Parts: sequence; C-alpha cells; structure tokens
Amino acid sequence: MTAAGRRRNVRLILEYDGTDFHGFQRQPGVPTIQEAVEAKLLRITGERLVVTGAGRTDAGVHATGQVIHFRTAGTIPTERLTVAMNSLPPYAIVARDAREVPDAFHARFDAMARVYRYWLLDGEPSPFYRRYTHRVAPLGDLGRLREAAAHLVGRHDFVSFCAAGAEVAHHVREVKRLRIRRAGALVMVEVAADGFLHSMVRIIVGTLLEVAAGRREPGEMPAILAARDREAAGPTAPARGLFLTRVVYPEEVLRRRE
Amino acid sequence: MTAAGRRRNVRLILEYDGTDFHGFQRQPGVPTIQEAVEAKLLRITGERLVVTGAGRTDAGVHATGQVIHFRTAGTIPTERLTVAMNSLPPYAIVARDAREVPDAFHARFDAMARVYRYWLLDGEPSPFYRRYTHRVAPLGDLGRLREAAAHLVGRHDFVSFCAAGAEVAHHVREVKRLRIRRAGALVMVEVAADGFLHSMVRIIVGTLLEVAAGRREPGEMPAILAARDREAAGPTAPARGLFLTRVVYPEEVLRRRE
Repeated sequence: MTAAGRRRNVRLILEYDGTDFHGFQRQPGVPTIQEAVEAKLLRITGERLVVTGAGRTDAGVHATGQVIHFRTAGTIPTERLTVAMNSLPPYAIVARDAREVPDAFHARFDAMARVYRYWLLDGEPSPFYRRYTHRVAPLGDLGRLREAAAHLVGRHDFVSFCAAGAEVAHHVREVKRLRIRRAGALVMVEVAADGFLHSMVRIIVGTLLEVAAGRREPGEMPAILAARDREAAGPTAPARGLFLTRVVYPEEVLRRRE
Repeated sequence: MTAAGRRRNVRLILEYDGTDFHGFQRQPGVPTIQEAVEAKLLRITGERLVVTGAGRTDAGVHATGQVIHFRTAGTIPTERLTVAMNSLPPYAIVARDAREVPDAFHARFDAMARVYRYWLLDGEPSPFYRRYTHRVAPLGDLGRLREAAAHLVGRHDFVSFCAAGAEVAHHVREVKRLRIRRAGALVMVEVAADGFLHSMVRIIVGTLLEVAAGRREPGEMPAILAARDREAAGPTAPARGLFLTRVVYPEEVLRRRE
C-alpha cells in the first residue's frame, strides 16, 4: 500500500494493437493511445493524469514494449494497477509490469535505446497476419538485404531516412543493430538505435525492399546516407508491420533509493 | 483456359477473420462472408453467383479451412481466381486452392467431417490474441479437462450442447476426436465430428471451462448428455476463439472424370 497524498512516479509497459488508433500522442478529435490510457487512469484514480511515452508511435503502429510514466497521488497499490487498467476498454491496449520508479525517471528522456521490429509476410496472404505484417513479393535470399542493412549500422546522419517535414534539431542517430531474420513466411527486420527520426524504420524497410526487388544495389546505401535528402531513399513501408518492442534504460535511473 | 459457355463447378478454401462479419450466411443489412465473397466474384466474373459453404459459421467465428463451391460460366482460369479474389476488399477474407471439381460436388452435403479449433488464452491479456482467443482463468493441469472431453467422443445425442431454438431434425452427431493441447499460454480444443449442431463447440468449451473451474466434475458429462436439455450444459463460450479449420470429403467426390 502507498500512503495517500504522496505522489508516486509509476512506470509501466504497454502493448497495443495500433490499427484503430491515430498514434500514441493525443490529438483532438481522434482516438489515440495516450488519450485512451489517460481515460482508463481517470476512471481508476479519479485524477486527470498526463502520461508520457518513450516513443511517439505513428497511426497504425503497434507496440509490445512501449514504456510510459505518470505521477499519481491515487491510493491504488501499484501492483493492482495493470489488472484494473486491463479490465477497462479499449482492450486493444494492455498494460503490464507497473513499477514505482524514482521521481526523476522520465520515459522519453532517460531512454538510451529503443528497439523496433518490422514484420514482412513473404508468402500467401493471411487474414490473421494482415493487421500486423506488410505482405511483400518473394524476398528470396536475405543476403542482399543484410548486406544493404550493414551499411546503416553505426553513427550516421539519417536525414535521408526521415519523413519530409519532420522538425528536429539534428538527424544524427546511432543504429546499434540491424538484424534480418526469417521464421517461415515471416521476415523480421529489427532495428535498435539510441533514437529514431520520424518514419525512420519504415523508410529503412521501404529502401531494403527496393534492394530485394533488384531496383537498388546493397552498395548504394552509403550514397543514400550521404545525399542527406529524403528523395534519395525508398518509399515509406506501411505502418501495420511496425512494432515498438523494447525501450532500454540505464540501470541507475530505475533504481529507487529507499 | 476454360471454354466460355460451359459452367464449371469450382471448390475453393476460405480463410477469414470473422470479427467484423455477422457470420457466413447472407442476411439482409449486415456484412456476411457469403455476401462479401459473392461481391468479389461478381466483380471478377460479372456473374451473380451463389456460393455454398461447408459450415455456416456464426457471427465473429473465424476460418482457416472453410470450403465453398459455386458454378460459374466465367472465363477466368481457375488457377487465377484466388489471386483475383485476394486483390479485392475485404482483405479479411482470403481465398486459396481453387480447383475445378465434378458437377455433383456440394461443399455442405458431401462433407463427411468438419474440424473446429477453439483457442483459449491461459495467461496475461494480449492485444494481438484478443480477436482470436478467449482468455480464461488459469486452467492448471489439463487432465481433468481431457477426462471430461473423453466422455463426449463417440455417437451421442448432443441436444444438450445445441443452442436453444435451433431447428434441426435430429441431434445425434458423432464426435470422432476431441483433443486438448497446450502450446505455451495457448490451449487449443480441437473437435472433429461428422457434423455440428448450432454453437455445439462453444457450448462444449463453456462446459469444459466449468470443469476447469471446479464447478463441475469430469464424470458429470454423461449425465449432461443424457439430460437432453440445453440447461444441463455450461454457458456458450465467446465466438472469437473459434475457427473452422478443416472440412473432409471422401476422395471420390473430388475426383474428376476426364
């Protein structure tokens, strides 16, 4: 139990099917993940809380490991919070692993890495994978894709892989890992980085698919980076295949001093 | 290619996410699988065809192996039919394995067995399994469920497991197999029978869940059958966990005489 009156900083993990939401961030007049989660918390705590997410997933993008934090003076024990949240609609959003964290913890600013996975369906259409994969023409051997992907690993200016019109101060990001794995008809592209520009994973995947189709060569990737021009890269792959799967924090920001 | 004018009898397999449909069978004013498939075929062939399904799945029930047949005078080659169908919405319905069959073949009347699978989620809620499973309280050991299920295998009057108000001439069906298998947090109940009464699988599952919860004993199943009363069995499990997975035909009805 928590003493009433004191404000706890709570971190929890969200999984969601983003198909029917206009992204994470609250926007007037359309359903968003943030608004739906805040509405659940209002019913549970009676407080109009503001939740902060580690990643601002776009419309139609899913999550298995989105991290949020919020400060509450409510008296519901932290360990009962997720069961209460999951008993309320919308059920397309599921909370897990609620945990009290130090007051200073911030889901977005403290994140040192984020991991996204993009799922391709390299096979016959399926009504059950439809919401969660992007179906592609046969990819064949993944060697060419992996060769292209290897050029993107490391610290680069990724402005060529950033949605036009996005306003951020600088475009240098460090891609720590870019793996491509096959499991039957599913091919997963996993990208881990210290941060992501708007639509960065989807433009990387769209460009890799042009390599798979033979319209580009793996060796073209450095020139695409160097161009510093969105037009140099491939199209933006659809939102439905993309999942925010993990957010990594330094140990110390999560450790509570008792 | 097929000569124009001659009517082919075509059998194909449908997979569908039934969440947004009011079942297979056409009904005025609501979206149904039958109507959606007939609309796709109208666009492809220009003909107002009537399709017949092997099983009349209810609202919200899915399929990975529904079988339909229809007779067409259209000229599109049979092998191109499914690609054409899958390029048209709704994409929640996918066709595969189109095949020309003997004129006499009838998807419903010739079926000698149907297989349904019901998926239970015995674990934490998930937004991705939500449309396709029924989440249950921890099932524990499946031994009690399997013991209860064993009493239902064989030729029985299943009227206790038939939705009240369903009008059928007789209620004797032969359950050929009733298996319960676990794969991680998923538990699958598979029922194969020569035919099914309305909601039969869902009432069987609802009754097994009462056994799992300790509200009934496995040994009560023969008395439930003998009661010949819907009130004697458990509640109807929700549609979302149910899949029509396979329809079995005698070899000879599918064999074409050339």
